[in-house]
Amino acid sequence: MSLIVVGSMAFDDIETPFGKSNRIIGGAATYIALAASQFIRPVNQISVVGYDYPQEELAELERFGVNLEGVQIKKDRKSFFWAGKYHMDMSARDTLVTELNVLSDFDPVIPESYQGAEFLMLGNLSPDVQLKVLDRLRERPRLIVMDTMNFWMDTALEALHRVVARVDVLLVNDAEARQLSGEFSLVRAARKILGEMGPKYLVIKKGEHGALLFHGNTVFCAPALPLEDVFDPTGAGDTFAGGFTGHVARTKDISFENLKTAIIVGSAMASFCVERFGTQRLREIQLSDIHTRIRQLADLVQFDIDFN
Amino acid sequence: MSLIVVGSMAFDDIETPFGKSNRIIGGAATYIALAASQFIRPVNQISVVGYDYPQEELAELERFGVNLEGVQIKKDRKSFFWAGKYHMDMSARDTLVTELNVLSDFDPVIPESYQGAEFLMLGNLSPDVQLKVLDRLRERPRLIVMDTMNFWMDTALEALHRVVARVDVLLVNDAEARQLSGEFSLVRAARKILGEMGPKYLVIKKGEHGALLFHGNTVFCAPALPLEDVFDPTGAGDTFAGGFTGHVARTKDISFENLKTAIIVGSAMASFCVERFGTQRLREIQLSDIHTRIRQLADLVQFDIDFN
Repeated sequence: MSLIVVGSMAFDDIETPFGKSNRIIGGAATYIALAASQFIRPVNQISVVGYDYPQEELAELERFGVNLEGVQIKKDRKSFFWAGKYHMDMSARDTLVTELNVLSDFDPVIPESYQGAEFLMLGNLSPDVQLKVLDRLRERPRLIVMDTMNFWMDTALEALHRVVARVDVLLVNDAEARQLSGEFSLVRAARKILGEMGPKYLVIKKGEHGALLFHGNTVFCAPALPLEDVFDPTGAGDTFAGGFTGHVARTKDISFENLKTAIIVGSAMASFCVERFGTQRLREIQLSDIHTRIRQLADLVQFDIDFN
Repeated sequence: MSLIVVGSMAFDDIETPFGKSNRIIGGAATYIALAASQFIRPVNQISVVGYDYPQEELAELERFGVNLEGVQIKKDRKSFFWAGKYHMDMSARDTLVTELNVLSDFDPVIPESYQGAEFLMLGNLSPDVQLKVLDRLRERPRLIVMDTMNFWMDTALEALHRVVARVDVLLVNDAEARQLSGEFSLVRAARKILGEMGPKYLVIKKGEHGALLFHGNTVFCAPALPLEDVFDPTGAGDTFAGGFTGHVARTKDISFENLKTAIIVGSAMASFCVERFGTQRLREIQLSDIHTRIRQLADLVQFDIDFN
């Protein structure tokens, strides 16, 4: 009963320089849950899908230890659909289609069995929905992690600030940290967000350049694995979040030291995610693959200081 | 007699969002020498200046242990002058003026006392000049490090390739690695440059995102110190190169392990460079400041792997 994951479940059309995928399974909560399930089960999912969401995909999630009691199935509506196209450098993408469908009026219901969860991962979603989840939990989880994106800063900034004020860890990318703080320097952005907005920890995701974890006046810099090809970046940020919260929920340790390790776990998980289209790679990997990759990340930054 | 540094000595006009500087001392060889002089003296400089280069600046360099025997002073010519303006994000800049002056027909002369040097740092300069230096050294140094830039890839690619083929370590930024290799992925770019072009080591500088060191199939990822403000990035790459070669020349150890440490030293030196306009900060710091910063860089990436 330890980890609750909130977010979208979706169909994605994805086009990258390496190819196209057609109506594959996606959504923030799907990526988060698949990544977190490597470390903790059950993952208590809160989401919504339509009649068109394949039964076998739900069964597959259950095999990964994802508890779907909190996933509403709307019999007369279609699932959330997103289509996007990546540019050559893979760090920029165009959204071609967004059909909110069931997501447009998503009213999250928290099953009684989810109450009392120690850890909460609020995946990228409307701040209003994120707020509803917070309001409907009778006990505050020990650690609340929140992902968001620039879209909500543009369209729902006030509600977004109300969520941010109530979470422990905020995950954003570098451009979003700049937008939210109005500061160009990431160090200044972090000081403002941590000093004035509520969270105790700020994670700034920088894609191929790794991630930064800010806490008080301390910074931790996590590398990203240098990859030969990034096949499809979709879901990499969600997968990072899933690895991060999965590790924390497994170890039940919310110290700064352990959050640093959690960032490394997140970075390792994200490095798998981008190797194939959609969630494919996340369904193939074993814990031993993950440990190997974490060891690679450790080796990547290891050096001797020689003052002699 | 250990380290030779080749490069420009210049006057720079620099404009950043933080202010303007007027005809301050710059040039690749100046930054490299000031950084390297923290670790090894003398630094045997090869460069050229005009009648307008201040005598007190030359004396100052000598106080830093820079041997100016290889610096030609052209009594009837003006020194190299560069003017540039940085954008808000400091990673892009416009060159406003380039007056080559004495640099236009620079014919490097290697003093007899420099012959037999163990280490050579070819700073960013015309590949033809870099080639002349290589040709005029009677003994090949144990380690030859080379910096260059996109300008030479655009205008003198063939000569550039001839230099690259003869060096051990190539330093470029990420855009330059992509341009030189024709590969977007930095891992593929590194494989092509190391596999086909000559160098055994490739350092890819990524500014605020740190640096990567490639060797064979191995990668090392060095962090950059997250800074509140980057005051002036001019010379940061040269300073990085100076710290790198200074450390190698001091330790006389050209193993991969020690080159990793050298990258960290370079990153530490570059983090000082950007704190003030021009070379100012490099003239103020002490070895103890550098050790503190290297320790900060080590702490920045330190984490525990917890598989329990």
